[in-house]
Amino acid sequence: MDYQSILQEIADETRPLLSQGKVADYIPALAEVDPLQFGISLTLFDGTEYSVGSTDTLFSIQSISKVFTFTLALKFYSTAIYERIGREPSGNPFNSLVQLEYEHGIPRNPFINAGAINVTDALHSHYGEMADTFEEIVGFIRAVAGEPSITCNKTVAHSEMEHGFRNMALANLMKSFHNLDNNVEKVVQTYFRHCAIEMDTKMLSRSMLYLANHGIDPITGTVHITPQQAKRINAVMLTCGHYDASGDFAFHVGLPGKSGVGGGIVAVIPKLMGLAVWSPGLNAQGNSLAGTKALELFTTKTGLSIF
Amino acid sequence: MDYQSILQEIADETRPLLSQGKVADYIPALAEVDPLQFGISLTLFDGTEYSVGSTDTLFSIQSISKVFTFTLALKFYSTAIYERIGREPSGNPFNSLVQLEYEHGIPRNPFINAGAINVTDALHSHYGEMADTFEEIVGFIRAVAGEPSITCNKTVAHSEMEHGFRNMALANLMKSFHNLDNNVEKVVQTYFRHCAIEMDTKMLSRSMLYLANHGIDPITGTVHITPQQAKRINAVMLTCGHYDASGDFAFHVGLPGKSGVGGGIVAVIPKLMGLAVWSPGLNAQGNSLAGTKALELFTTKTGLSIF
Amino acid sequence: MDYQSILQEIADETRPLLSQGKVADYIPALAEVDPLQFGISLTLFDGTEYSVGSTDTLFSIQSISKVFTFTLALKFYSTAIYERIGREPSGNPFNSLVQLEYEHGIPRNPFINAGAINVTDALHSHYGEMADTFEEIVGFIRAVAGEPSITCNKTVAHSEMEHGFRNMALANLMKSFHNLDNNVEKVVQTYFRHCAIEMDTKMLSRSMLYLANHGIDPITGTVHITPQQAKRINAVMLTCGHYDASGDFAFHVGLPGKSGVGGGIVAVIPKLMGLAVWSPGLNAQGNSLAGTKALELFTTKTGLSIF
Amino acid sequence: MDYQSILQEIADETRPLLSQGKVADYIPALAEVDPLQFGISLTLFDGTEYSVGSTDTLFSIQSISKVFTFTLALKFYSTAIYERIGREPSGNPFNSLVQLEYEHGIPRNPFINAGAINVTDALHSHYGEMADTFEEIVGFIRAVAGEPSITCNKTVAHSEMEHGFRNMALANLMKSFHNLDNNVEKVVQTYFRHCAIEMDTKMLSRSMLYLANHGIDPITGTVHITPQQAKRINAVMLTCGHYDASGDFAFHVGLPGKSGVGGGIVAVIPKLMGLAVWSPGLNAQGNSLAGTKALELFTTKTGLSIF
Repeated sequence: MDYQSILQEIADETRPLLSQGKVADYIPALAEVDPLQFGISLTLFDGTEYSVGSTDTLFSIQSISKVFTFTLALKFYSTAIYERIGREPSGNPFNSLVQLEYEHGIPRNPFINAGAINVTDALHSHYGEMADTFEEIVGFIRAVAGEPSITCNKTVAHSEMEHGFRNMALANLMKSFHNLDNNVEKVVQTYFRHCAIEMDTKMLSRSMLYLANHGIDPITGTVHITPQQAKRINAVMLTCGHYDASGDFAFHVGLPGKSGVGGGIVAVIPKLMGLAVWSPGLNAQGNSLAGTKALELFTTKTGLSIF
Repeated sequence: MDYQSILQEIADETRPLLSQGKVADYIPALAEVDPLQFGISLTLFDGTEYSVGSTDTLFSIQSISKVFTFTLALKFYSTAIYERIGREPSGNPFNSLVQLEYEHGIPRNPFINAGAINVTDALHSHYGEMADTFEEIVGFIRAVAGEPSITCNKTVAHSEMEHGFRNMALANLMKSFHNLDNNVEKVVQTYFRHCAIEMDTKMLSRSMLYLANHGIDPITGTVHITPQQAKRINAVMLTCGHYDASGDFAFHVGLPGKSGVGGGIVAVIPKLMGLAVWSPGLNAQGNSLAGTKALELFTTKTGLSIF
Repeated sequence: MDYQSILQEIADETRPLLSQGKVADYIPALAEVDPLQFGISLTLFDGTEYSVGSTDTLFSIQSISKVFTFTLALKFYSTAIYERIGREPSGNPFNSLVQLEYEHGIPRNPFINAGAINVTDALHSHYGEMADTFEEIVGFIRAVAGEPSITCNKTVAHSEMEHGFRNMALANLMKSFHNLDNNVEKVVQTYFRHCAIEMDTKMLSRSMLYLANHGIDPITGTVHITPQQAKRINAVMLTCGHYDASGDFAFHVGLPGKSGVGGGIVAVIPKLMGLAVWSPGLNAQGNSLAGTKALELFTTKTGLSIF
Repeated sequence: MDYQSILQEIADETRPLLSQGKVADYIPALAEVDPLQFGISLTLFDGTEYSVGSTDTLFSIQSISKVFTFTLALKFYSTAIYERIGREPSGNPFNSLVQLEYEHGIPRNPFINAGAINVTDALHSHYGEMADTFEEIVGFIRAVAGEPSITCNKTVAHSEMEHGFRNMALANLMKSFHNLDNNVEKVVQTYFRHCAIEMDTKMLSRSMLYLANHGIDPITGTVHITPQQAKRINAVMLTCGHYDASGDFAFHVGLPGKSGVGGGIVAVIPKLMGLAVWSPGLNAQGNSLAGTKALELFTTKTGLSIF
């Protein structure tokens, strides 16, 4: 397939949408991003990469980081992680406390905020007091992205912490249900730091290869997780990857994917490729407006949806 | 692949589970079914069918019927159907009124009870006062299953109606929000009748072919719906097909599917086959216990999950 | 105290508010009422009555009828009635299904719709198949009001039934939890009929005397209920009498009371008098706007609040 | 009335209940209290006091402190306080986050935990950065109790803070809705300190006199609040004073009152007296079991209920 032309067509067709989205404005560092940017990349198993647009521009990956932390949690805890978090769609906004209270502090899945904070707590417990949990997380991301320079934007992380009362509420609520082992503030701080990691679409599309290839990095041959675990992460991405627009994403795009409020979306085409798109203007559900459309166009044009 | 041997292995491996499920007991007609039965069938695009176990025994398809009514609703209303129902996982039990009240009478998706009743109402409006909506529905099912003898069990339908106060509550609640056009009792009656339709796993696996083949029956060549619509039904089956165990099903099985409280489950392997399994003993979430395990074994053994 | 002058002052001071309320418009029969009407009456234990305004005009008592049905239920069932309904404020709108589902079909108190429907069901069970439950209810109201001509407005009752899908939903939901004994439609019909009873403020203020006087009608000497029961009905009126504005009513007025969507409000001053006010224009919570203010003025001017 | 004999009778009749309650055990300092203790006191407007049982034993007043902080908030903010908190019964447990999220961070009333934390925040804002808000609160309590030695138990306050994740969650949630002005931890710390204040039933019954007497201390003549404000605090105590057992308390006792998890309950008989009872064994709703019964016996024996 002529991926380069297809990506170019998609870039052309989504251009009119760029001005319709609204950048995240809950912290200044994100509010200042120019909404008219767009980039899309795909990476095949042999490392061939196709890119159109601003694909070298770093942006805040935000909730996309939850895919990587969930991977590490599954790797270290295997199915025991499900004593702390579920794997069902929540049917509620990403930061809701309602369900968390009704369900006694067990978050519905690892991709809503409470679930991702819980996963970060589990990683803190795994690495132990002496380790720097954030460094371990970013180290894993560097490995799967094949890019040692990746790091977090400290201004963003700091700004999130200053406005992160809702996440502090979620973490304290889990702690009150004895479902958070470490210091609340420390865990939330690590959570905000991994959300503030910056990458571009090239790095992100490459970082999805292990999920497309049964847990093994097809380029380096590194075995990150088992085929079973990779399959299951994909399933959770499909059912829970876009908060309360997950059904809509499955419906329109038909691929396992995960979005972030920085405007990035990653997607996996099993046995074939990793995909990433970025455009900072968000739709009403908080997912990249042009990015979601771009992925829908991609599966429509290529017929590569999983359905 | 040697499907016959694989199905046989699955039947053998799930046998110990048959006694662990619990048959639906909310109406006598279902409570009397022998829980130790099991059948599994798959049908390929050329009509070849593989079956092991009690695959000629008719059983109540119950919520599996919602796949067919949703198909008809999409066919007649196209995207206009989404003015009345959503397509997001509900995160709540199948018969909950809570979310329906909070969301002003718009059911989350066509597979929870409220959504399916709403779809039945839409079909009543489409066919009109003079038509027999149930007959139209069963006619469509006969067509996709290639089996003219299919009908509903009147004892079951009658018994459901007698104990169907929760569904009457859902329908009245939608009516109070002006999201139900026809007579409440008439719509709920039709709903119970299509839930009481009886089929066996052979018919059901064959009836999934149009969803595996872009909306076209691969045997007869009949175009039932557009490729887009077929893709989207599959997506909704994956994210919402098993109530609040939908995430779990995607996680373990990794196929679009739909279960019924009669113990049946259908599944779709896009571009390849239709699948159906039946075992009346249910797990805690109300899905066939041995049936769910059988489908998990099938994707594990064949590697045919969509992820 | 010069009650006549006080009532006159109140009528004068509330006059500017009459145009600010909004009459109930969910059924035509109520929507047509002239909102600029106002009447207030009080009746002392010796039968002396003071009245200002339209105090001979009949209006739909609506939810005020729930005080009388609850009285009968307590009389016949004593504390056993609390196996079916609670006595706690609901914190939710009068017709919400949410709490009813979470609490397994047990309504919070006898004054929300579900609770009053449940009480009507209990009365049906008490009087039995052969009796006319509505006639028994209206008979009791005639007795406590000392007015044999009281009856229900059939147009209103019929109109309610036609638009009463929400109440049908509540009744069906309770039935699904086995907390409704009789035929759903029959019970809801009786409920709508007793809501459609018409009285004027003179009759209503007189009808509250038994609650002000420990369960005994001070004029006729009839013992309706025990002192304990009267005290408890007053307590429930104070905490639950005005749906989710009950706290506000206690706060501003400081008397046990019950409002109806027809614009009437009754109140009890223990050991002293019955009170009733009517003005059809409602505030945002569905209580008479001028009526609530009139009662607040009454307790402020007389110092007769219970606090 | 022979109050001394009545109190003695009550002490005798409630004795068998003392062993049936369960002391609060969420922190060690409370869990160690001997459950078999009981004390009851009443104070008249002239300062005459009647007491039976352990009425000189200090105990943790816990949520009773919310009556005093709400008094101060009304005194300083008047009705402007209702921009931050409501005055309706919540219908939910005292520490629930559900309603707080649905209602955008505005607590239902000043007596649920979120409301009381919010009031403490308002007092912090009123007194300013340079003042010691806790000292101001305890100073007011000393004044209304006529007892300068009153102080908080630091072990209890510290222990609460260590286990107070649920309250930290509530405070952070309000902060995320911009309904908390000061530092979250500082406010919660002050809240826990005023909950850890220790008093005996003599002090507490005396401290209720200003609420029984239109806002004026009948002994010292000090005007604490307006008559209107006193009336309204009483109304909120009646409708919201006992969490989701408020209806039950109004129903059985029929007095404005406020309970604390330390086993104390205060009550007000308007125009007559202040009352306090203490017994550490709690019922299922978290209110003193023998204490609630004692107050019910008091109103039954004396006929002094407000209804």
